Amino acid sequence: MPYEFYYWPHVQGRGEFVRLALEEAGAPYIDVARVEGPEVLKRVLEGRFPKPPFAPPFLKVRMHLIGQTTNILLYLGERHGLAPKSDAGRLWTNQIQLTIGDFSLEAHDTHHPLGPRLQFEEQATEAMKRAAWFREERLERFLGWFENILSQNASVPPHLVGARLTYADISLFQTVEGLRYAFPKAMQRAERRYPRVIALHDLVASRPRIRAYLASERRIGFHERAGLFRHHAELDG
Amino acid sequence: MPYEFYYWPHVQGRGEFVRLALEEAGAPYIDVARVEGPEVLKRVLEGRFPKPPFAPPFLKVRMHLIGQTTNILLYLGERHGLAPKSDAGRLWTNQIQLTIGDFSLEAHDTHHPLGPRLQFEEQATEAMKRAAWFREERLERFLGWFENILSQNASVPPHLVGARLTYADISLFQTVEGLRYAFPKAMQRAERRYPRVIALHDLVASRPRIRAYLASERRIGFHERAGLFRHHAELDG
Repeated sequence: MPYEFYYWPHVQGRGEFVRLALEEAGAPYIDVARVEGPEVLKRVLEGRFPKPPFAPPFLKVRMHLIGQTTNILLYLGERHGLAPKSDAGRLWTNQIQLTIGDFSLEAHDTHHPLGPRLQFEEQATEAMKRAAWFREERLERFLGWFENILSQNASVPPHLVGARLTYADISLFQTVEGLRYAFPKAMQRAERRYPRVIALHDLVASRPRIRAYLASERRIGFHERAGLFRHHAELDG
Repeated sequence: MPYEFYYWPHVQGRGEFVRLALEEAGAPYIDVARVEGPEVLKRVLEGRFPKPPFAPPFLKVRMHLIGQTTNILLYLGERHGLAPKSDAGRLWTNQIQLTIGDFSLEAHDTHHPLGPRLQFEEQATEAMKRAAWFREERLERFLGWFENILSQNASVPPHLVGARLTYADISLFQTVEGLRYAFPKAMQRAERRYPRVIALHDLVASRPRIRAYLASERRIGFHERAGLFRHHAELDG
């Protein structure tokens, strides 16, 4: 029975970390809201399921719903060999994934510092202040942390955890993709200092299932009106 | 050997979720930066430990550092009986904790929508917009979700997961404490609609070890200059 995956259609967002892991795992899944429309998300969240998630994304496994991006990945990583089997390895992978979540949330907050109730144009001035801080301090702080983790790991080619691909590697790939889209100038300046991060990005991009997914219609494009990573030239310095 | 816990001294912040769990577990720990000063945090983060966390809080267990609040709690919950033993129960507890993390981060963002580089006074106008959205929509949306989870669980007295106390219960207690401090007027209006959330808060507050901790000097007070939950009258509507 395929997984049922629930997230906003037409948006990469947080859900894309899960989609990419499902694709790399070769796990059969239905991206339900892309088939039935976005109303299905509300219907399921407000329906009769026990233990309803707070918000999308969530994954339906038989009769159970699993919510929160990093929690879904914790589940999938264990079941599809995308995380180590040891407790210590699983915790470390989860810790890295949570940090990727923080990083991508900070990227999101550059364009919506006052929250989603206002359009970008209504908070562009505030967004420029927040984006300056992100570009000048946070971007390199996060990238430097990942570079350091990769430099500590003797694995060749580079992996964040041990010698095999994990969902954290896949999520870091997606984060680099998003940052290149949203902040092309800042990333062009920054990338040369993080060769291992870029090498890992390229490694993930070359995985056959990921490559096939990226070239397929299942992969939604980045968009300046939706998702964690949005391009507005004035936020790129 | 006691745990070594690392977080900003003088601040509850995210670290308080961990401190409360350690206290309820009766686990010996040293709150290192309260003994040695805040410089120790940087020293350890930039030191020679493998797998360094990105930021405090982190927990040192023998020679290992464990970072990210929800990840530390995942670890402690398993070892100290503060989470179910089943995989499904552990994931559900983690999912709730992640949602508490989102809730408390949104409470934080009301006073610092433009990030921590600017003082509150430099972003008070933006903060008022963000706080209005939090008070009018998010506060009740989150509290309603927890109330619903509690109403689905037949446990008497109420618990979020199963029939025993988990770290998620303790963290929800802390969140209610923080909200009452930061938004006393909004909370006074809201609380009557969430009787189970308040009953769970009171249950946690009455636990002997929690009560002893709250009355001790180990418990740092809320503060309008530090932490996730800060009181500024103009943000309380």
